[in-house]
Amino acid sequence: MKEALRDTFEKVLEKATGEDLTVLSQMLNGLAKKQSGHENTYFKDLFLMEADFREGECEVAIPVTPLIYNTFSIVHGGVTATLLDTVMGVMANRLLPPGQQAVTSNLTIHYLAPGTGKFLKAKANVIHRGTKTMVMEGIAFRDDGTKIAHCTGSFFILKLK
Amino acid sequence: MKEALRDTFEKVLEKATGEDLTVLSQMLNGLAKKQSGHENTYFKDLFLMEADFREGECEVAIPVTPLIYNTFSIVHGGVTATLLDTVMGVMANRLLPPGQQAVTSNLTIHYLAPGTGKFLKAKANVIHRGTKTMVMEGIAFRDDGTKIAHCTGSFFILKLK
Amino acid sequence: MKEALRDTFEKVLEKATGEDLTVLSQMLNGLAKKQSGHENTYFKDLFLMEADFREGECEVAIPVTPLIYNTFSIVHGGVTATLLDTVMGVMANRLLPPGQQAVTSNLTIHYLAPGTGKFLKAKANVIHRGTKTMVMEGIAFRDDGTKIAHCTGSFFILKLK
Amino acid sequence: MKEALRDTFEKVLEKATGEDLTVLSQMLNGLAKKQSGHENTYFKDLFLMEADFREGECEVAIPVTPLIYNTFSIVHGGVTATLLDTVMGVMANRLLPPGQQAVTSNLTIHYLAPGTGKFLKAKANVIHRGTKTMVMEGIAFRDDGTKIAHCTGSFFILKLK
Repeated sequence: MKEALRDTFEKVLEKATGEDLTVLSQMLNGLAKKQSGHENTYFKDLFLMEADFREGECEVAIPVTPLIYNTFSIVHGGVTATLLDTVMGVMANRLLPPGQQAVTSNLTIHYLAPGTGKFLKAKANVIHRGTKTMVMEGIAFRDDGTKIAHCTGSFFILKLK
Repeated sequence: MKEALRDTFEKVLEKATGEDLTVLSQMLNGLAKKQSGHENTYFKDLFLMEADFREGECEVAIPVTPLIYNTFSIVHGGVTATLLDTVMGVMANRLLPPGQQAVTSNLTIHYLAPGTGKFLKAKANVIHRGTKTMVMEGIAFRDDGTKIAHCTGSFFILKLK
Repeated sequence: MKEALRDTFEKVLEKATGEDLTVLSQMLNGLAKKQSGHENTYFKDLFLMEADFREGECEVAIPVTPLIYNTFSIVHGGVTATLLDTVMGVMANRLLPPGQQAVTSNLTIHYLAPGTGKFLKAKANVIHRGTKTMVMEGIAFRDDGTKIAHCTGSFFILKLK
Repeated sequence: MKEALRDTFEKVLEKATGEDLTVLSQMLNGLAKKQSGHENTYFKDLFLMEADFREGECEVAIPVTPLIYNTFSIVHGGVTATLLDTVMGVMANRLLPPGQQAVTSNLTIHYLAPGTGKFLKAKANVIHRGTKTMVMEGIAFRDDGTKIAHCTGSFFILKLK
């Protein structure tokens, strides 16, 4: 399999545009990061998503690269949705005691402005903390501070055995 | 830059688990597909998303691979959101005359069951077609037909010059 | 207290426009209906809401009168929301076995066209029936069949002791 | 017609429970208020809804009475929806220049706690102010400050001739 991969890699490399090289580099570095021991998902490392949680606040950032463009060369709405779901989920799970886990039950996203610039970041707030569900708010911004999307979501609280 | 990429590629390859190889293969094949002349995004080709539109119906499919897992090894909710946004957007845009374009204004997603199996697919329906906005419905399924998510979304209709 | 009410009633009657009389008539008939033994709420009887459930389908209707106008003399969006919440809630509860009760957890409503005509009616469908939650769809129409609003909502299932 | 109304009024009065009298009193006082020159709707006066707008903040309050109970003797979710739609709509319209009008395009409401106590109040915030749409947030509280519902909504901005 490795030989076949090498073959495909060389073919892709040969035909690569500058943008292709950027994307290929992001992919390989994402994989390398995943291998370096982070307990992350391929998905998160590929998109170079970084979560930061301190003093009760949670922030997740993602660089804007061609990899996450939609057909209009702005950030795909699905990536913004992923960013918002991630920041709310990370924050919700941080607030729960060991043995409990929050999973997304529903999301409502309002898209406010195009996702452009060097990176996007998102913050989460708690709207309601119940015993069975949590309602969270997530807001995504450009690097210049422009709000690009607003989200609310319900999370079920699972009791793990 | 190509030499640096080759270097990273070899390092990743050396340490690769079986799952890493699967993901690396998907990435390289996605890039090769993008290079082969599809007018697609990196994003869509990387996830091997395929849109099919015939007889007024639109369907988008995506294979379930480790690349799109969340930390619980089921499909990341953000990927399901992307799939739903894509199927609704593709369908909305197919219905518009040349010179008009539909962009997502808001989305509401209800997650119903875990995304597992070999692939996910999603279908779209028109709830309302106005002159300024369209309201769409999107439904995502597992390969066994189980409904995993339901979505409604508003799309603004832009008049391009 | 009754004497004071009579007094207010006569004062209102004296100043009443034709529209005031229509509204007053609706109010008193709604109260009379409530008193006649229906196990309804004041709210439902006042708005003359009628629920019909047969062959697995649920429909709720409400006459369009000045009582439910907003400041633009079309049906208040809150009344349409009430109609949709009611039809989904009635249907969800009909599907549950004795000892279980569905309560609204969240609602998303898309307003599609003004509420006008002689009456509005709404229908409900089940999107997902789980053991802890149900996801319902509600659609509201004018008497001429025009769709005026589309709604999805999650309902928690409570186990009563 | 007035004689028929008097007749119905007396019949309702004769059979009235204490709760019926409370509701009848609210209805008649609501109508009297409407007649006294307020440029309000029957709907708003009947529910004794009061909007207060000062220093850039908008608040709408409604007393909790049997009139707005659901079948479980807590405030009907549709009334809470009406309260939230109203507070967001009033605030959005106050922010627009003359000749423009905001109408609700969609609403998402998360219900957080039962509506009980002596009154409910709701506040609105601007999430996004665009040229074609505004996105608003509305939050409803009990008199003791408990948050009972959270809402976001999109409003279309109409340019009146």
